[in-house]
Amino acid sequence: MPSQLTTSQHAHVLVSALPYIQKYTGKVVVVKYGGNAMINPELKKAVMTDIVLLALIGVRIVLVHGGGPEITDTLKALGKESKFINGLRYTDAETAEVVQMVLAGKINKDLVSLISQCGGKALGFCGLDAGMIKCKKLEGSVDLGYVGDIVSVDPTPLANAIYNRYIPVVATVGTDENGQVYNINADTAAAEIAAALGAENLIELTDIRGLMRDVNDPDSLIHEVKLSEVQALVDGGIISGGMIPKVKSCVSALENGVKKAVMIDGRIQHSILIEMFSDEGIGTLFTR
Amino acid sequence: MPSQLTTSQHAHVLVSALPYIQKYTGKVVVVKYGGNAMINPELKKAVMTDIVLLALIGVRIVLVHGGGPEITDTLKALGKESKFINGLRYTDAETAEVVQMVLAGKINKDLVSLISQCGGKALGFCGLDAGMIKCKKLEGSVDLGYVGDIVSVDPTPLANAIYNRYIPVVATVGTDENGQVYNINADTAAAEIAAALGAENLIELTDIRGLMRDVNDPDSLIHEVKLSEVQALVDGGIISGGMIPKVKSCVSALENGVKKAVMIDGRIQHSILIEMFSDEGIGTLFTR
Amino acid sequence: MPSQLTTSQHAHVLVSALPYIQKYTGKVVVVKYGGNAMINPELKKAVMTDIVLLALIGVRIVLVHGGGPEITDTLKALGKESKFINGLRYTDAETAEVVQMVLAGKINKDLVSLISQCGGKALGFCGLDAGMIKCKKLEGSVDLGYVGDIVSVDPTPLANAIYNRYIPVVATVGTDENGQVYNINADTAAAEIAAALGAENLIELTDIRGLMRDVNDPDSLIHEVKLSEVQALVDGGIISGGMIPKVKSCVSALENGVKKAVMIDGRIQHSILIEMFSDEGIGTLFTR
Amino acid sequence: MPSQLTTSQHAHVLVSALPYIQKYTGKVVVVKYGGNAMINPELKKAVMTDIVLLALIGVRIVLVHGGGPEITDTLKALGKESKFINGLRYTDAETAEVVQMVLAGKINKDLVSLISQCGGKALGFCGLDAGMIKCKKLEGSVDLGYVGDIVSVDPTPLANAIYNRYIPVVATVGTDENGQVYNINADTAAAEIAAALGAENLIELTDIRGLMRDVNDPDSLIHEVKLSEVQALVDGGIISGGMIPKVKSCVSALENGVKKAVMIDGRIQHSILIEMFSDEGIGTLFTR
Amino acid sequence: MPSQLTTSQHAHVLVSALPYIQKYTGKVVVVKYGGNAMINPELKKAVMTDIVLLALIGVRIVLVHGGGPEITDTLKALGKESKFINGLRYTDAETAEVVQMVLAGKINKDLVSLISQCGGKALGFCGLDAGMIKCKKLEGSVDLGYVGDIVSVDPTPLANAIYNRYIPVVATVGTDENGQVYNINADTAAAEIAAALGAENLIELTDIRGLMRDVNDPDSLIHEVKLSEVQALVDGGIISGGMIPKVKSCVSALENGVKKAVMIDGRIQHSILIEMFSDEGIGTLFTR
Amino acid sequence: MPSQLTTSQHAHVLVSALPYIQKYTGKVVVVKYGGNAMINPELKKAVMTDIVLLALIGVRIVLVHGGGPEITDTLKALGKESKFINGLRYTDAETAEVVQMVLAGKINKDLVSLISQCGGKALGFCGLDAGMIKCKKLEGSVDLGYVGDIVSVDPTPLANAIYNRYIPVVATVGTDENGQVYNINADTAAAEIAAALGAENLIELTDIRGLMRDVNDPDSLIHEVKLSEVQALVDGGIISGGMIPKVKSCVSALENGVKKAVMIDGRIQHSILIEMFSDEGIGTLFTR
Repeated sequence: MPSQLTTSQHAHVLVSALPYIQKYTGKVVVVKYGGNAMINPELKKAVMTDIVLLALIGVRIVLVHGGGPEITDTLKALGKESKFINGLRYTDAETAEVVQMVLAGKINKDLVSLISQCGGKALGFCGLDAGMIKCKKLEGSVDLGYVGDIVSVDPTPLANAIYNRYIPVVATVGTDENGQVYNINADTAAAEIAAALGAENLIELTDIRGLMRDVNDPDSLIHEVKLSEVQALVDGGIISGGMIPKVKSCVSALENGVKKAVMIDGRIQHSILIEMFSDEGIGTLFTR
Repeated sequence: MPSQLTTSQHAHVLVSALPYIQKYTGKVVVVKYGGNAMINPELKKAVMTDIVLLALIGVRIVLVHGGGPEITDTLKALGKESKFINGLRYTDAETAEVVQMVLAGKINKDLVSLISQCGGKALGFCGLDAGMIKCKKLEGSVDLGYVGDIVSVDPTPLANAIYNRYIPVVATVGTDENGQVYNINADTAAAEIAAALGAENLIELTDIRGLMRDVNDPDSLIHEVKLSEVQALVDGGIISGGMIPKVKSCVSALENGVKKAVMIDGRIQHSILIEMFSDEGIGTLFTR
Repeated sequence: MPSQLTTSQHAHVLVSALPYIQKYTGKVVVVKYGGNAMINPELKKAVMTDIVLLALIGVRIVLVHGGGPEITDTLKALGKESKFINGLRYTDAETAEVVQMVLAGKINKDLVSLISQCGGKALGFCGLDAGMIKCKKLEGSVDLGYVGDIVSVDPTPLANAIYNRYIPVVATVGTDENGQVYNINADTAAAEIAAALGAENLIELTDIRGLMRDVNDPDSLIHEVKLSEVQALVDGGIISGGMIPKVKSCVSALENGVKKAVMIDGRIQHSILIEMFSDEGIGTLFTR
Repeated sequence: MPSQLTTSQHAHVLVSALPYIQKYTGKVVVVKYGGNAMINPELKKAVMTDIVLLALIGVRIVLVHGGGPEITDTLKALGKESKFINGLRYTDAETAEVVQMVLAGKINKDLVSLISQCGGKALGFCGLDAGMIKCKKLEGSVDLGYVGDIVSVDPTPLANAIYNRYIPVVATVGTDENGQVYNINADTAAAEIAAALGAENLIELTDIRGLMRDVNDPDSLIHEVKLSEVQALVDGGIISGGMIPKVKSCVSALENGVKKAVMIDGRIQHSILIEMFSDEGIGTLFTR
Repeated sequence: MPSQLTTSQHAHVLVSALPYIQKYTGKVVVVKYGGNAMINPELKKAVMTDIVLLALIGVRIVLVHGGGPEITDTLKALGKESKFINGLRYTDAETAEVVQMVLAGKINKDLVSLISQCGGKALGFCGLDAGMIKCKKLEGSVDLGYVGDIVSVDPTPLANAIYNRYIPVVATVGTDENGQVYNINADTAAAEIAAALGAENLIELTDIRGLMRDVNDPDSLIHEVKLSEVQALVDGGIISGGMIPKVKSCVSALENGVKKAVMIDGRIQHSILIEMFSDEGIGTLFTR
Repeated sequence: MPSQLTTSQHAHVLVSALPYIQKYTGKVVVVKYGGNAMINPELKKAVMTDIVLLALIGVRIVLVHGGGPEITDTLKALGKESKFINGLRYTDAETAEVVQMVLAGKINKDLVSLISQCGGKALGFCGLDAGMIKCKKLEGSVDLGYVGDIVSVDPTPLANAIYNRYIPVVATVGTDENGQVYNINADTAAAEIAAALGAENLIELTDIRGLMRDVNDPDSLIHEVKLSEVQALVDGGIISGGMIPKVKSCVSALENGVKKAVMIDGRIQHSILIEMFSDEGIGTLFTR
């Protein structure tokens, strides 16, 4: 117990959590995990603790992760230069293999193991398991190589895992019909998985506080955005740059049946709990 | 949220609850509810809130209650004097009827309703339901009338309720083979029900801090007592008077398979949560 | 065995019951229990025996009861005068508490116990259990105090009980959103419960033979009434006085999906069996 | 309804059946059907009605039948003489085929169809289905050809049928390991099936009143025989002739776990119901 | 193992079966069994082996059979002349009885027993079981006596058997509402049963190679026929004579939801396996 | 279909497989996959095809794999020298990480994907998933670093996968209580997993024909070895060198409840099928 609080204060906090537990118990919540929260060991452990706690009180939590920095490190260690086009990794066949190996073998299983250390039970998956994520080559103005555009998600293995009370952890690689492996954007994958599972909530951990009206004004956080307001925010330049794909994922999740999508600051310890266990939340909530 | 704490402190408290939730989730915990916590409206609500919270995070909670003061009040209102022998109510046929009516119809359903108000779902039972508690006349040095000695408890209706995720609330009256109603001591009934359900834990709410080596020394609380030590404490006069039947219930529960029995101070708000969610607990724990 | 009949006659009677058993096995039948059959001990036992027999041969029976006379007696014993307006009990806050106590704690559990004595297994419920019956203040030309108008019935606890082969017995009190208890007309409650459970049949035990064309002519019993004929019977004065609310309940049940509603004479021993196990029945049958 | 009785008498009879229904509901009862009750059309229909009624009120009834007379008739029609040795049919290969055809194709399916006509649902089986009854050649002082001695009974298909609420009707032919068909004594088969199913009761329909101390004294019926008393009755000549194999079957059933075996007079209409729904029964009861 | 092939060739054959197993596993396939394959003992055993193999690898196989020749033989042995009108058996009451006896008692149970000998587990049914096949008198230009026109098929007993992993074998007799037995054309019955079970495939074993454009040209087998092409083939005389009712059954099955119906040459050993485990099949396939 | 065989030969081969399918359907078979069969692409595909076929016909197959050569390659590509002591890889912390990454991320998911390509559905696991394989440092005469000695296997995730009809593929890394990753010998892991699952059969794919009495005499293959004979074979030098750990795994599996363990030549195409679908098998069978 945090020593500065009395046991009575503890009890009051637990009691104050009651309505939030009631709200989420039995619901599917997909957490897109990335950024700083994935690099800083202390934040990492805090996220895993949040996840274990949520699973324990009956939230059906699914963790979806990418892993850019570690892929870059391993490629470099293998003597292969990472090549980026417009901020997106160019993925040749050899790179695709390394992406699979690092995401599904290293990061994914490390997270699974960390959840075990925190007292939870997780199972590691990637899009290759049971042919779960099918994709095709992402078409666009530039050729990015084996970067995948999701064609379909079969959520059955994840649903089975949840049913058996495991926490599924998903590495975002997929295959096409010929078995070719593709690197998939984790934000997009999280949104598609949330939709396929009929999730209540998609939580995106980011390295910013949320959408800001004025980046320089810490008081200008936008607490809630309706789908109908997104275009205006893009037009007004409030949603721009790296935010665009993240917002797009949230929008896509909502359009495919997810009830809420929220972008929160992964740099704050226990940001997931703070978001889910308070009325005001701490990031930007997207709703229909 | 209690306004004086930050959201971050909230999150830390929730996280600190993790190991305790892990310890109790899926376990049956029987709470014997009585004394001051049953009279003071604020304490009453706090107990019900604790119960709802515990049920929500997966504890299979059963609430067992008596209700002496209200019985006395109703008897008085009906123009009937309560008669006590050695502190135990003499129960003639008419009194037995009133006991049933007040316990099963007033107190029991009021608690059920209060749990609803706190966001839980409870079902009210008494020992007459499905012939659940069978008893015979309690034999002893004095005749107490229709005071029952439990012969058998069929926990099936309670187990069904738990399975369907309801909180069973049990009023402690029972019947003999001829359908005669008996008043049953609630401590005893709670112990028998805990044993019949294979409970992990029996929690007795009392109006004292627990067993004290010296009643006048607030620092002399005995935190843990092994079964083998009980007799010495009785001989030494530490367990005496009204404590004897309560300790007996705890001992009986442990002897019949319950893992732990604990006596806590029901006058402290959220004492159940404080007991279950801390290592040290707040009362006197009986173990095998 | 009734001694005047031969074993062979017995066998013939049982065989003649075959088509009626086939008709009702597996079906939900709601019995509204009240009037003389609830006061006369011999009739009371006969009704409970019928219920146990029906449950045993596979009918899913639900017993709904009121209890006016006992409420009046208890109020009187408590020194409180019962006040009736147009034949309906004026229910102040204190009276509502007594109604709950007497119905849910005395009459309900006594019936449950009597069913046990007859070899059945019953569970006692009231509208407070799991917030099962929600109501609001009944609006009307006169203020009746806490007399409830049913807003919703959640039949889940009753359906669970039936599934586990218990006989649910229901006392007709309910609560509003703030937990205030209301007295509810038992005929109305029985009809709503029958509708919520998708019952096959609603049986109302009354103190009359059924609808009579001429109250003074014992041969003028109306055996069957179609919904479309009800208004004419009201207009013609055949349905009048105390019959109106009972007929209304039958009509409401039919309009909400119940297949048949029948009003029978509870003063005849085993009237339920006689009604269900003969082609002609013994009361007035309402059909769509 | 039998017109000479009032509806009230009807109700009383049904109520008087309550304890017997409670006694048998959910229990397996195997009826060995043969003799006069199988030839007289009126008796036949009465037996099937009894069976349908029992199945409906929850008794798990299994009907086992032989069919000597029809086999003899068909053999004769086919120009084949029936040959009996010590009252037992000599069964050559051709006869075994005819036995199978008549028992499993004619008598069995006729009974199944008659049960349908009475409102029940039956499935016809013989020992060949799923290799249910395995046998070998019956060894003895004389060679009876393909008369089978039961080696094993697999009750699974019958148990499945019961579970799905069908009435299994079993023709008593079986096969050895090479697929050779054998004629099996129906009394023996019924006893073995009852044992394999863990039956509560084996009922043998016969053409006599039961065991008589003095065949000429109608008042000398022996109501109950304990296993330990059987040998004395054989020695005393009370059990003799055609009774010996029937008594042997009862004894064997009891020794293999069946609770009760009873021999009743199939010439009395509804003898099964009269036996099961009265305290005294109508035949001779064998108990351990 | 067939000695002329190496174990490696064996393995290759098994592997080549993979896509066909994938195609049929879990699907219902109804086989109409008749003609030469039912008379020649070697072919008979080969068919039963195919059936057992298919059942084992997860195909939900149902065997439907007639049995004209054996009926004729038995009628003759009973001194009764078979009478045919336009190639259809005239069925008087006595003949209907013999048909039932021979089909349900002899042929059906012999097949069940043969499947046991091949290592499978079969259960024998006829349309009388649980009133499974209801029919009425077939209307037509000539009176054929008790020849049935199917009114309804209740597939529940067959579905239960399949669920419990038995192979149902069905003799094609049925009854009308009065319990009168009718002889039913086995092709028609197989088609109706396939439709009632929502079968994937109906396989008709015949004594011809399939539909031939030119009966004298062995290379003129028509491999596939669409429903829309049938009429033209009838008009062109390609479908004629005894083929007409068989084609009609296939057409009816397809029109009632069966996916494929195929007519194959039962004179070829293992024709069912060859049909199901090759792309080209060996007979004439009817599709929508 | 292999073109040189007729469809009739095909059918005969399938039929000859019948008894072997009957023998293994529903049984758990653990295949230890390694050696040449894991390197040669054609053999690799043949193994995966065998696995898919077996899964399809109802064998509950589990694939356990190591991956020495690829680990060495990746270490080399990362500029890290592999160090072997007595033929065992010395595993420092960095190597342990690479082992996890290559086994669980590359080889494991590649196999899962290849099974998808062959029409099966596989899920990839490693010992980190749900803390499935717990180990401690392997004690021995030399320090091998993070080489694990299995302490416990929790087969639940694999059993769940099998229940849901997936093929589990397991990479053999595990963790200790602190989350440290260990490299585990795949033969040992396969034996422990087989024991934990109560497998019928453990099949070890090797690069030799089996145990040879004389390595130079191709006719000296030992077809079967009883547990009691193993020591003599070790003493006689028949079991020596690299064979010792493999034989030890087989022995350990048998001692822990696995019925059969067999060592077969993975260099032969479809060796698994040939082993399982012939009486003689193709390798050396160890039995109790």
